[in-house]
Amino acid sequence: ADVKKIAVIAGDGIGPEVVAEAEKVLKRTEELFGYQFETEHALFGGIAIDEKGTPLPEETLKVCQSADAVLLGAVGGPKWDNNSKELRPETGLLGIRKALGLFSNIRPAFIFDCLKEASTLKPEVLEGTDLIVVRELTGGIYFGEKFRRETANGQEAVDTCAYNVNEIERIARQAFEIARTRRKKLASVDKANVLETSRLWREVVIRVSADYPDVELEHVLVDNCAMQLLRRPSSFDVIVTENMFGDILSDEAAMLTGSIGMLASASLGEGSFGLYEPVHGSAPDIAGQGISNPIATILSVALMFRLTFGYHEAADSIERAVAEVLDAGHRTGDIAVDKSKAIGTIAMGQLIVDAM
Amino acid sequence: ADVKKIAVIAGDGIGPEVVAEAEKVLKRTEELFGYQFETEHALFGGIAIDEKGTPLPEETLKVCQSADAVLLGAVGGPKWDNNSKELRPETGLLGIRKALGLFSNIRPAFIFDCLKEASTLKPEVLEGTDLIVVRELTGGIYFGEKFRRETANGQEAVDTCAYNVNEIERIARQAFEIARTRRKKLASVDKANVLETSRLWREVVIRVSADYPDVELEHVLVDNCAMQLLRRPSSFDVIVTENMFGDILSDEAAMLTGSIGMLASASLGEGSFGLYEPVHGSAPDIAGQGISNPIATILSVALMFRLTFGYHEAADSIERAVAEVLDAGHRTGDIAVDKSKAIGTIAMGQLIVDAM
Ligand SMILES: CC(C)[C@H](C(=O)O)[C@@H](O)C(=O)O
Ligand SMILES: CC(C)[C@H](C(=O)O)[C@@H](O)C(=O)O
Repeated sequence: ADVKKIAVIAGDGIGPEVVAEAEKVLKRTEELFGYQFETEHALFGGIAIDEKGTPLPEETLKVCQSADAVLLGAVGGPKWDNNSKELRPETGLLGIRKALGLFSNIRPAFIFDCLKEASTLKPEVLEGTDLIVVRELTGGIYFGEKFRRETANGQEAVDTCAYNVNEIERIARQAFEIARTRRKKLASVDKANVLETSRLWREVVIRVSADYPDVELEHVLVDNCAMQLLRRPSSFDVIVTENMFGDILSDEAAMLTGSIGMLASASLGEGSFGLYEPVHGSAPDIAGQGISNPIATILSVALMFRLTFGYHEAADSIERAVAEVLDAGHRTGDIAVDKSKAIGTIAMGQLIVDAM
Repeated sequence: ADVKKIAVIAGDGIGPEVVAEAEKVLKRTEELFGYQFETEHALFGGIAIDEKGTPLPEETLKVCQSADAVLLGAVGGPKWDNNSKELRPETGLLGIRKALGLFSNIRPAFIFDCLKEASTLKPEVLEGTDLIVVRELTGGIYFGEKFRRETANGQEAVDTCAYNVNEIERIARQAFEIARTRRKKLASVDKANVLETSRLWREVVIRVSADYPDVELEHVLVDNCAMQLLRRPSSFDVIVTENMFGDILSDEAAMLTGSIGMLASASLGEGSFGLYEPVHGSAPDIAGQGISNPIATILSVALMFRLTFGYHEAADSIERAVAEVLDAGHRTGDIAVDKSKAIGTIAMGQLIVDAM
């Protein structure tokens, strides 16, 4: 039988709780659809620092490398915030992206009908918002040379932002491919009026666009994009941008949907391998109380089914189950209007499994 | 008599129209308060490219340098968008900031009560929003070394982001000083979990904060700030950040108020000299039709009175006049609910002058 290997990284904070519910969904998928999954757990982030002295242990990387996909909960927390760079969970995140060649981060941001009111934007502005931010994930200022030096004006810190043609071309192609399966609109975001990397970015995107005449391309400056996301969110289809701008804009886009506890993300490389994780963080303030929302992590499994395994029917089943449970009025505390009626993490997971 | 010299740069697009109304306000201030202004016009931006072959002519710089303050309309437009770097309006903007030593950009973003509905955010979320973004303006990736080189992966473009202790310290002090005159809360925005410049930024801000024990300091990561501006805009008082992050966040903050046609900005250096301009751009699509909104430029004059000249009474008079005219229901097209009742640029300017 075709057994799919999934590396499971529970991580820190609410990570273990939400991942546990996602694993129940995996199990239920086996029963319902006859697929087979082999999961292997690995330490990563803060817990790996505590137990192994490094956020990304060798073994964890090996487990991921021998898997077909990775499911990640969340990493980080105040406990490790003041550690030196090598002993910080974020360093593990950057390391795993680079080591696994995950150059593309896909972040769908859309509105759950029944949660429209959760957004701080007016419902009529949000209406129809359904966009994907495609963020370059292994280049730019995140991975360029960094150092300090002494100057006449005191110590100076330097970060370097670099992009080469190949890096830009592969992410641009991926964004065009995704746009082609959707509303066929691509907004490429840069700061070409100031940055050399952005000018190269724009040149390459324009060159690649010749292969996608069916996709309408617009160039948007990053400052303007931050505004337009607020003014006309529903007019965007696919947004492609470099690492740092993508970090900022994908969070802005997620927040404006009002559904940040519900959004999944995928980090992809060449081929079908991918790392899947909820957009929300480790929420250390509510960890261990059994009240966190497992939906984003469960939907990350659905995204894995679609993008890595091609199990579309199973993905449909999960997404429908989530919609059904929400439509029936069930809410975890983060999305409940009446907090006194909120249900817990396990109850929510069970309802979704039952509805599949 | 104490004659204040003001360099007036009308610029491109709607720039000349809105600046003309602001000049009427200067004139009225002379009559009402006995002050004396000497204005000198200078070419800058696209029009300077057309007439002088450079966005920032020597003479313009001289006019600015011998003035006490600069009033700028707006620059840029599609006509010059595909020019080479040296012949672009933006290059003039970056050049004038550097040449005049304007290291700090002050962008107040607040809600005009009668325009609350213009925002895409819910009124109850916006309620009480009144913040200032203090953006470092002459450092960082905007001014670092930029170049291209050939690599095995095709051409590579490089931008360098650098900050030294002095640059960070002077902007931090200014932000703390401003916070001290307000609600005494400062949010310093960085990406210290990834960038070396951000780690130095945070170190220096923390050191400077020892001199401002009365100001409450929080550190916010830039991606989180992009979210929190949407989630809880009214909780921010003063935000201080580096050049690129400030470009993005100040535009997001301006847009969420829904009053972008109304917001003024100041760019300051050491001493009292400053350059004042509306936050909105040159709006080439409506230029020359006499329908643009002069309020942001008029309020830029009020900001100049406060920050450069200390003419607080005159500034009060302008701000009160604007509020009165708006309260009486007068609107330009950009802020009118009923567009058929919109008045033009000159009519709006005249109403404000009359109300002073
Ligand atoms: C934790 C941090 C390094 C990371 C990033 O900036 O990439 C996070 O914000 C994200 O978006 O995944
Ligand atoms: C035109 C551009 C160079 C400029 C900037 O990025 O600083 C503008 O966006 C601004 O904010 O004044």
